[in-house]
Amino acid sequence: MLTINLERLKESIRALSKIGYNEADHGVYRWGFTDADMEARHWLLDQVKSEGFKAHMDGAGNVFFGIGDYHKKPAVLTGSHLDTVPAGGIFDGALGVLAGLEVLRTIKANDVPLNHPVWVVATAEEEGRFGGMMGSQAITGSLNMDWLMSAHDADDVYLKDAMAVHGLDVMNVLDAAWPPERLKAFYELHIEQGPVLFNEDICIGAVEGISGVFKWIVHLKGKADHAGTAPMNMRSDAFMGLADFAHEIERIIAEDGTDKTRITVGKVDLKPGSPHTVPGEAVFTIVGRDMSSEVMKELADSCRKALSAIARKHRLMFEYEQVSWLDPQACSNRLTQIIENKAKARNLSCLRMPSGAGHDTQFFANLTEAGLIFIPSVNGVSHAPDEWSRWHDVEAGTHVLLDCILESAS
Amino acid sequence: MLTINLERLKESIRALSKIGYNEADHGVYRWGFTDADMEARHWLLDQVKSEGFKAHMDGAGNVFFGIGDYHKKPAVLTGSHLDTVPAGGIFDGALGVLAGLEVLRTIKANDVPLNHPVWVVATAEEEGRFGGMMGSQAITGSLNMDWLMSAHDADDVYLKDAMAVHGLDVMNVLDAAWPPERLKAFYELHIEQGPVLFNEDICIGAVEGISGVFKWIVHLKGKADHAGTAPMNMRSDAFMGLADFAHEIERIIAEDGTDKTRITVGKVDLKPGSPHTVPGEAVFTIVGRDMSSEVMKELADSCRKALSAIARKHRLMFEYEQVSWLDPQACSNRLTQIIENKAKARNLSCLRMPSGAGHDTQFFANLTEAGLIFIPSVNGVSHAPDEWSRWHDVEAGTHVLLDCILESAS
Repeated sequence: MLTINLERLKESIRALSKIGYNEADHGVYRWGFTDADMEARHWLLDQVKSEGFKAHMDGAGNVFFGIGDYHKKPAVLTGSHLDTVPAGGIFDGALGVLAGLEVLRTIKANDVPLNHPVWVVATAEEEGRFGGMMGSQAITGSLNMDWLMSAHDADDVYLKDAMAVHGLDVMNVLDAAWPPERLKAFYELHIEQGPVLFNEDICIGAVEGISGVFKWIVHLKGKADHAGTAPMNMRSDAFMGLADFAHEIERIIAEDGTDKTRITVGKVDLKPGSPHTVPGEAVFTIVGRDMSSEVMKELADSCRKALSAIARKHRLMFEYEQVSWLDPQACSNRLTQIIENKAKARNLSCLRMPSGAGHDTQFFANLTEAGLIFIPSVNGVSHAPDEWSRWHDVEAGTHVLLDCILESAS
Repeated sequence: MLTINLERLKESIRALSKIGYNEADHGVYRWGFTDADMEARHWLLDQVKSEGFKAHMDGAGNVFFGIGDYHKKPAVLTGSHLDTVPAGGIFDGALGVLAGLEVLRTIKANDVPLNHPVWVVATAEEEGRFGGMMGSQAITGSLNMDWLMSAHDADDVYLKDAMAVHGLDVMNVLDAAWPPERLKAFYELHIEQGPVLFNEDICIGAVEGISGVFKWIVHLKGKADHAGTAPMNMRSDAFMGLADFAHEIERIIAEDGTDKTRITVGKVDLKPGSPHTVPGEAVFTIVGRDMSSEVMKELADSCRKALSAIARKHRLMFEYEQVSWLDPQACSNRLTQIIENKAKARNLSCLRMPSGAGHDTQFFANLTEAGLIFIPSVNGVSHAPDEWSRWHDVEAGTHVLLDCILESAS
């Protein structure tokens, strides 16, 4: 069993964390295609080349480096993204890239014979400045020119202009696509960004897939009344309708959901929103998730039925708009089993689990066998400066990644 | 039994409704101490003087007119306010003033012998531009110079400056106070501004008092989590705490309240308020009302207990600030009985009821026996251009007001 060099990996993580670091809030700012993001890509290219690895940047801004020739034999690819959300942490994305580098170093240092090339990718614009997962979508052939030309960020900066600033031509993004036969397997090591592994004191998450998600915007319309003059039984209080629905969520999950189901009301607007007025309208979001699209359909159906009944009871009008529906994306069963076996072989506790957040893996899963490895996030925190993962978990995750890659590449 | 002249009263209501009328939204704009408000006061002075009544404006902008000399014998006073909310209706306040005028006209036309003076007051700034009920507070001696000098509206216009524009000196407001011995009784006729009389098809409300009201701002603080990665049982969802509380309102009223209790959650802010984030904080208002301060205390206590228990269950921090607490103000039992008797004598349906909204009557009740008469508001609507009361209800209410005044003044 090989051992990675944790100190060497820590040094790389620390070096990368300085690029885009903000002294004021201690956050990392490497929003896709900003100067800091591109500086990190060039730092990475220089770093891996100086260590003797083959390396290049593709037309989408993805940085590749590795061992072996993937034109001759299908490659085992690993990696994650290099960009961060504004005021993000130092592990989200970076861990998967630099753990991949540490795996290459370990293979090289130990002269491990490989039957397949092993490469690492640092994907571009995963976090969503222009919609997210652009790099992995480019590699897996999921983009088209129409979208590329019209994509822009919240400040109306176009993707093509943001790329041009750094000498990248948006016309070359489509050239980044890999043919499926070039890949043997894809692995991603990532922090969980949730509390499960940390709370349950488990070291490794063997991710079964990325949850599907639907998002609704719901309108309940009643009647705005004077809160003093309208008796309780003569009201059409839209907020009370919403509260009744919230109360049904637990029942809906118990009846139609699984332990992987999540239903969240995250945004609520009451109109007129005055303390002395019975709310005449409630506009709110429902976001539902599960690992099965069948379960998702049943959950959505139960939400609709519950809201209809509640609306009748409170004399409300009920309307909803399904803003989005993404089916779940399963990881490779075989690779998830390999992850579990490798964790067990190293005496690491391991949990099969879903991912509630999206990851590059979900696009690679369309192209090849894909596996996703989680390590614990302290207190479940991510997308914030106090995102943290303990070094012994980083080490353990990198060991599992190494063992999985060696199994797939041998 | 005397009969009022409904056509004459309608004509006055229509004439007054033109002052401050807005063609665009069909609303009346006579916000306190605006040009339109003062124009209405001068129109009223001119109108009643031209009909031969004694009339004057006091230092607070209240317009008085009547029959008899209240320096010699205590007067029966009636009236309501002349100002409106922005985009208000034509009855709120104006009805009580012009019905009072119609009562005087009827007394005069029929040469009714009076044992006491009968006067009408059109109060100033009831609706709240500078806090509300300024005119009735001036008459009942409830103001002080400190408040008068510092009072300002939401646009930081000072009361003293708004009055000066119309030649009124704020120093004279305190001179408007009446000694209690000048009053024998006070009656106010007002639209209900709620749905009870209209829905139950009752003509007259004999108001037992104005509900007390408390207002809380509540903070529930949990933990903002990613809505995908945080399992349902590991969340501290502040919104779910609020929803659980809303669900308890019915029980709290059933256990500790009365049929006059109202509890309203009218304003809700979730933080961060993003569809994909478990709400880490909920800030919301609770407004509670009842006719008994003892009941109010029990309701407040039960709300506090329910919120504490819910906070523990959801692992939330619970804090609240009691922004205001106003005790209920009872009307005179004797006058409420007179109102009921007079309605019955005219074969009008009548309901004893609370007022959930504030009225000038609540300040006069500190000074003298005070009675408040409601007529139905169509669909319960008020403070809006589509506020309406049917003319036969206006006529019935004015008849009851006339009969009550004659009983008290004879």
